[in-house]
Amino acid sequence: MGRTSDARNKILEAARTLIEQRGYSALGVAEICTAAGVPKGSFYHFFASKQALALTVIDEHWTAQQQQWSELLGSDRAPLERLRDLFEATEEFQRAGRQEAGLVVGCLFGNLAAELSNQVPEIRDRLQEIFEAQIDMIEKVIVEAKDAGQAGPAVDTRDAARSIVAQIEGRVLLAKLLDDPAQLGTLWQNSLGLLQVPAAARPAGV
Amino acid sequence: MGRTSDARNKILEAARTLIEQRGYSALGVAEICTAAGVPKGSFYHFFASKQALALTVIDEHWTAQQQQWSELLGSDRAPLERLRDLFEATEEFQRAGRQEAGLVVGCLFGNLAAELSNQVPEIRDRLQEIFEAQIDMIEKVIVEAKDAGQAGPAVDTRDAARSIVAQIEGRVLLAKLLDDPAQLGTLWQNSLGLLQVPAAARPAGV
Repeated sequence: MGRTSDARNKILEAARTLIEQRGYSALGVAEICTAAGVPKGSFYHFFASKQALALTVIDEHWTAQQQQWSELLGSDRAPLERLRDLFEATEEFQRAGRQEAGLVVGCLFGNLAAELSNQVPEIRDRLQEIFEAQIDMIEKVIVEAKDAGQAGPAVDTRDAARSIVAQIEGRVLLAKLLDDPAQLGTLWQNSLGLLQVPAAARPAGV
Repeated sequence: MGRTSDARNKILEAARTLIEQRGYSALGVAEICTAAGVPKGSFYHFFASKQALALTVIDEHWTAQQQQWSELLGSDRAPLERLRDLFEATEEFQRAGRQEAGLVVGCLFGNLAAELSNQVPEIRDRLQEIFEAQIDMIEKVIVEAKDAGQAGPAVDTRDAARSIVAQIEGRVLLAKLLDDPAQLGTLWQNSLGLLQVPAAARPAGV
């Protein structure tokens, strides 16, 4: 890796950490460059603006997350087990983030949606696409569960997927507020309720 | 109302609107005073700092919301109907806010929790108290529903209340991201799932 792409990566890494810690609006390009240890002139070699940088941070985070979600939700395990795998990975991600940053940082997408939906249309549009893609991926698994009789016959698969994404976002917000990743520990059990999973299809003890 | 309290109210009103639209970090005292039409000298007559102002905005919003929640959740209607009343009022609040501001502004508490949990301990502490109080109020209704056989016997009332608050926050976030208050329209139905409401206790068609 040459010096040039090193600088770009350092800027992206610093920006992501700072956005997670402090949000977008309060940040300046100069501060990001200082944290990255990169001269300000380099910044505009790689990014047209702070907004362009934020969009790249979002895209890189989504690329990695989408890859992980695809693997977990596309595995050959039973549909409800795949949802459990996703929730466990989400909790683990918050735990690892806490270990690294000292505090639960929450969801990059949720944080930015709360902060910027009414301020930066380009970021709002990108986040809308990402949340819709998350809902699509979860809905596919719910459809499979329903076809297998492992979700209630009356479940609206689209709305249930939306509710599960909302539930993840709400629980991650509580985890951040309370600095406690264990707030995500009952996501799976609650999803069984949202999906009206018949008693016979529930694992023992749930 | 004398001139003095007028100025205080104008500052509070402007601050609340600006915090809803743009968050806390990006705001300055000078901007708040300009929006309020109040000289900057007056500001420090009423508030020691921007943080003190934000805490007052939070407290006033909570006082009003707590009053509304108490009325709705403490009414003499059936427990599950009281939850429905709360969800309908929450959706109506977002619709009214959208009419006034032109865009869904989301949840003041959720927005600030996402933005400031890792930055301003005093605000984080206050928000923790508010969310715990919300969970307490909802749990009381769930306990009543459970005692009446209208929630599943295996439901953990505390965790179910936490899940409902998380569900509200997640749905309000989607409503803000999509500028669509109808995202809150299935909160009640989803809560019946979270509460494992027996089929016999569900209203017709749900």
